[in-house]
Amino acid sequence: MTPLAVALGDPAGIGPEVVAKAWAVRDAAALPAFFAVGDPRSVAAVWDGPVRRINDPADAGAVFAEALPILQIDDGGAITPGTPNTAGARCALDALELAVGLARTGAASGIVTAPVAKAELYAIGFAHAGQTEFIAERCGVAAENVAMMLAGPTLRTVPVTIHVALRAVPQALSVDLIVSRARTTARALQRDFGIEAPRLAIAGLNPHAGEKGALGREEIDLIEPAIAALRGEGIAVAGPLPADTMFHARARAQYDAAICLYHDQALIPIKTLHFDEGVNVTLGLPIVRTSPDHGTAFDIAGRGIAVEQATVAAIRLAGECAARRIKRA
Amino acid sequence: MTPLAVALGDPAGIGPEVVAKAWAVRDAAALPAFFAVGDPRSVAAVWDGPVRRINDPADAGAVFAEALPILQIDDGGAITPGTPNTAGARCALDALELAVGLARTGAASGIVTAPVAKAELYAIGFAHAGQTEFIAERCGVAAENVAMMLAGPTLRTVPVTIHVALRAVPQALSVDLIVSRARTTARALQRDFGIEAPRLAIAGLNPHAGEKGALGREEIDLIEPAIAALRGEGIAVAGPLPADTMFHARARAQYDAAICLYHDQALIPIKTLHFDEGVNVTLGLPIVRTSPDHGTAFDIAGRGIAVEQATVAAIRLAGECAARRIKRA
Repeated sequence: MTPLAVALGDPAGIGPEVVAKAWAVRDAAALPAFFAVGDPRSVAAVWDGPVRRINDPADAGAVFAEALPILQIDDGGAITPGTPNTAGARCALDALELAVGLARTGAASGIVTAPVAKAELYAIGFAHAGQTEFIAERCGVAAENVAMMLAGPTLRTVPVTIHVALRAVPQALSVDLIVSRARTTARALQRDFGIEAPRLAIAGLNPHAGEKGALGREEIDLIEPAIAALRGEGIAVAGPLPADTMFHARARAQYDAAICLYHDQALIPIKTLHFDEGVNVTLGLPIVRTSPDHGTAFDIAGRGIAVEQATVAAIRLAGECAARRIKRA
Repeated sequence: MTPLAVALGDPAGIGPEVVAKAWAVRDAAALPAFFAVGDPRSVAAVWDGPVRRINDPADAGAVFAEALPILQIDDGGAITPGTPNTAGARCALDALELAVGLARTGAASGIVTAPVAKAELYAIGFAHAGQTEFIAERCGVAAENVAMMLAGPTLRTVPVTIHVALRAVPQALSVDLIVSRARTTARALQRDFGIEAPRLAIAGLNPHAGEKGALGREEIDLIEPAIAALRGEGIAVAGPLPADTMFHARARAQYDAAICLYHDQALIPIKTLHFDEGVNVTLGLPIVRTSPDHGTAFDIAGRGIAVEQATVAAIRLAGECAARRIKRA
């Protein structure tokens, strides 16, 4: 298996620090070989460990035991941890683009992406909603056909809608969209997670999953038809389930992933249970892509206190998914 | 302190079983003295332990060490665990009414209510949305001035709206309603929970608490003005907080209660963390009232497998709240 490419994200965010710290615990955490893609100065600014520049991903494996291998992006801008600028955004975007390209060719077995600064990306003309949409485009996949999974040690959730105001969620939902997200999830559980017969659970939108229409009709009009369609495709689906009672330990044991209808329905349970170790996995791509489920955290960048646990989990999970894809291929 | 009155709820539900089991663990759980209110046959049908009929709540204390004291309601109907009927609903309502009356006079120091069967209650002409609204009316408090708290060992949440379809939540919210719920919560934390300077956290409605209006305006139009008003009253309030990142352990340590805007926002975190031990506390009443945070569970009634943990927690918390009210009085 080729190494993973880890894009360092914004050089002024906590990305360089958490990636370097993840390398430092590579043995204890049993991480697969990876190399960073970004500006080595962003690592040196926040970390004292060994870094070695590589020119070819194929060299990462040999270097990995002794130093953090890094494929250099030269952006030329000044790096001040905690203070993003447009040069840093350009560097982050170049690193992301290179990492995706390497994964597309197979030179990297998958990518892990550290957080970027959206405001600065927009300032340099970035026209996508986020890294995920950019990656999907570079992979030739329509953004509506990918899905975001939040994965923790005891729970996986997939929101059907993401950055949508709560009042706009009901009209943003459709039978087709729910079916699409669930189907993408089921396929990814097979291909990337090694679950041959995945079990999905779909949440209701309304309190008590609508109480047969008394507290809202989306369960009847949208979710139940979507479940029927999915079952028609042979996918095991439970639901619509009352959202409040589907995330405790005994309930979680009944399914492999929960399909949720809006951002907080998916993210409240995962972050309540697994705040420091949540991994964001992009499902439906031709490449493996994970990221730690946190932002740039400019407020703590450069202080040495960023927690690498989610990055460690993201790298480990990307390695597991990549290995499964190779095995199935 | 006078004993607590525990209304057994629907005689065919799990109420009688979990109350009896709570009595059985009274010493290990350090429960205050209580007496059941309901039909002794509903207990005998599901439990082999000692039950003793009392005619006066004042006798409960002496009986409590040896048997479950019960103030009898005669409904005359047949009791089949798992199969509710209208006679059982009448019995549950009579028990509730008697328990409230005893707490109002001080003969009981507070009430704990086991679950009722709403469909059967409606069939006998019950005109309230639930037990809480009935209790509020009997106490002379407008239903909009009480609040529901879900309390677990590490989290307390209070939903601003409860049984409202998700699409109707935004229009159901108002500055006044948010302020009212938060104020009721702050007062209850002082009076019932012994927290002299309570710290509230108010959730945002939209993803990322709206991102300064980019993902919804309710934070700006409703929640921030409500927070300003509450601070003007001297109440410590944080928010609006992104709902997904406010319920993990470190975040929970920053506040005494979370004010949530809709049912699942409040209930997902509490039931994810504390499914078997969640207590429903009615705030803003002249009497103490708690209940286990589960339903009648007719599907398992009479099988001896109902878990009493939430009822134990509800009785213990009612006793603690009642003791604090007496101390403050």
